[in-house]
Amino acid sequence: MTETDPLPFHAAEFTKPDGRALTLYGLAPVEVRGEIPSPAGDPPVPRPTMRWHPLRGEWVMYAAHRLGRTFLPPPEYNPLAPTTNPEHPTELPQGRYDLAVFDNRFPSLTPDAPPPEHPAHPSERAGTGKCEMVVFSQDPSGRLAGLSGAQMALLLAVWADRTTRLAQGGKIRSVLAFENRGVEVGVTLHHPHGQIYAYDHIPPVQARMLEGARTHLAEHGRPWLADFVAAEREAGSRLLRDEGEALSVVPPFARYTYETWVLPTRPVGRLSELTDAERVAFARVLKDALLRLDALFGVRMPYLLTVHQAPLDGEAHPEFPLHIELYPYLRAPGRMKYLAGTEQGAGEFANDKFPEVAAAELRGLEVP
Amino acid sequence: MTETDPLPFHAAEFTKPDGRALTLYGLAPVEVRGEIPSPAGDPPVPRPTMRWHPLRGEWVMYAAHRLGRTFLPPPEYNPLAPTTNPEHPTELPQGRYDLAVFDNRFPSLTPDAPPPEHPAHPSERAGTGKCEMVVFSQDPSGRLAGLSGAQMALLLAVWADRTTRLAQGGKIRSVLAFENRGVEVGVTLHHPHGQIYAYDHIPPVQARMLEGARTHLAEHGRPWLADFVAAEREAGSRLLRDEGEALSVVPPFARYTYETWVLPTRPVGRLSELTDAERVAFARVLKDALLRLDALFGVRMPYLLTVHQAPLDGEAHPEFPLHIELYPYLRAPGRMKYLAGTEQGAGEFANDKFPEVAAAELRGLEVP
Repeated sequence: MTETDPLPFHAAEFTKPDGRALTLYGLAPVEVRGEIPSPAGDPPVPRPTMRWHPLRGEWVMYAAHRLGRTFLPPPEYNPLAPTTNPEHPTELPQGRYDLAVFDNRFPSLTPDAPPPEHPAHPSERAGTGKCEMVVFSQDPSGRLAGLSGAQMALLLAVWADRTTRLAQGGKIRSVLAFENRGVEVGVTLHHPHGQIYAYDHIPPVQARMLEGARTHLAEHGRPWLADFVAAEREAGSRLLRDEGEALSVVPPFARYTYETWVLPTRPVGRLSELTDAERVAFARVLKDALLRLDALFGVRMPYLLTVHQAPLDGEAHPEFPLHIELYPYLRAPGRMKYLAGTEQGAGEFANDKFPEVAAAELRGLEVP
Repeated sequence: MTETDPLPFHAAEFTKPDGRALTLYGLAPVEVRGEIPSPAGDPPVPRPTMRWHPLRGEWVMYAAHRLGRTFLPPPEYNPLAPTTNPEHPTELPQGRYDLAVFDNRFPSLTPDAPPPEHPAHPSERAGTGKCEMVVFSQDPSGRLAGLSGAQMALLLAVWADRTTRLAQGGKIRSVLAFENRGVEVGVTLHHPHGQIYAYDHIPPVQARMLEGARTHLAEHGRPWLADFVAAEREAGSRLLRDEGEALSVVPPFARYTYETWVLPTRPVGRLSELTDAERVAFARVLKDALLRLDALFGVRMPYLLTVHQAPLDGEAHPEFPLHIELYPYLRAPGRMKYLAGTEQGAGEFANDKFPEVAAAELRGLEVP
């Protein structure tokens, strides 16, 4: 097996009755019982567009079809659970699989978005891209941290696989996988799941990361990630767990109080470049980091998890640091961090606690 | 009176018992009854620092002293109301004044922040700057939209005055005035108030605005604001109110559903450059915009208000568009907008409603 091979996993592709794509992934061969379902009702025809914000230098996505959700499920209906009652079809079938990926029913971006018919602003253009849902488990009451080590490694391989597939059409320049968890941050479906946004351009955050990484390489002759890992290992005070091929750390410039990064220790730009051993170590460190966040205050920590990979512009990007950022939204028991004046109006965060102090607290927790 | 004169207003400066500065502003001459108070207990000694985030290209502020708040007020104690019981001194005295500005008791930035004694990261430096509180009214149950036209114009003059004063030491490069309103966004003091952050550098949002404005001037030969006002007047579909010297609009690239901007129609970079007539018109349009947001769903809209002015780098910036941005956090009745994966992880907003539709809704409301 070569360095760039994915972990052994099984995948099966399907087309839903409403035309959307579904891929089931498993550690064992995928088996489906019954029909592949789509929720009742026709999905709206997406016509997403984008407009340019000239003073922030970023695109804004408009998806008016997302408001047209006429589908009213029964209260206990969970569209991400396997279908049990054919009268209330969900997004997923019964069967043997660990993870599922399907086209978002209400996408903010689509591969074949038409140009706007009556643009109300000169900068308006088609919202080209793709939005996918990623269901982490068949268990509605589960959590990402509850995945086994093998399932977590499978998820990393699935994120890598989606990135590679999304890059294939040549339209996609950047892929962001993320999980937003918690009612405190607007999540209404508690079934463990994440999303993928694929952009036809390099968004501002990724563009700035690339610029920072290039500057570092030019100035120091080494990838930023190599120097970062060496410095954090030497300092030690911000490390949470070091598994050799991967580690977790509260970064020295943490914006959220308990912000945690998970990184490979060999500089690579994309998940698909991880070796099997690196993927397994990365999965172990990620699971450990998630368990610490839930253990911190004894509640399920609301958080945002984002996966940062190099742009898909046809170039290798050894200077770009593949990593996962975790933003826990609680800064103390029962106290949320809100993005107020300085964060939103100036783009600079105020943090009440030094990263070394937060790291010591997280490191001191007993986790399985 | 020349173009750059402030509206006639009265101001009186004081030093609080704990050493912090207090300025009272009034439409009539300021009169104080009793002593100038400070809340009980010594304020912590602030030692704010900053560290550089190399992958986002921004500073992060650390203010560990903010956690050391040992002061436990009685539940009904409101530190922003005038002191009525000398045993529970507040931040403000009894007397005749309309607005008050004082040094934040728990600042994220201070003018004389010492260099860090034991920096735990090479990029760590003193958190130089200033944080001020701005109390909009003596009425604890009031709201910014409830200010009279003259009081609102006074507030604009006070923001201008603070900006000018903060620029005087030569250390401050950018001033951000803002109001964060609503329990939904973490506000615990309901007394109408805002804050001012003064930075010793140009923060990312202001830097990008300056860059966008410079690019526009270079490409079109006119300030961005002049072309924007002309285009919005011609389109009409996004205008909320046009008072000649100032107008309000849902910008064509709105990131929040009911995002509203208030702008002068003559391109200026700072509030201090407004004429009296412009300030009065601007105040009227701002009050109207705030009233519309509260009328929209029949609840006090949680929002963030930010005042954007040109950098204080010793240069005139006629290309920089002075304006106020209002971010209403409700996108529908009872439905908050949360900043999730694409907003925080990529820096790009997804908006479910076109600005023209949101503007029509806001324009159709009956407000006083």
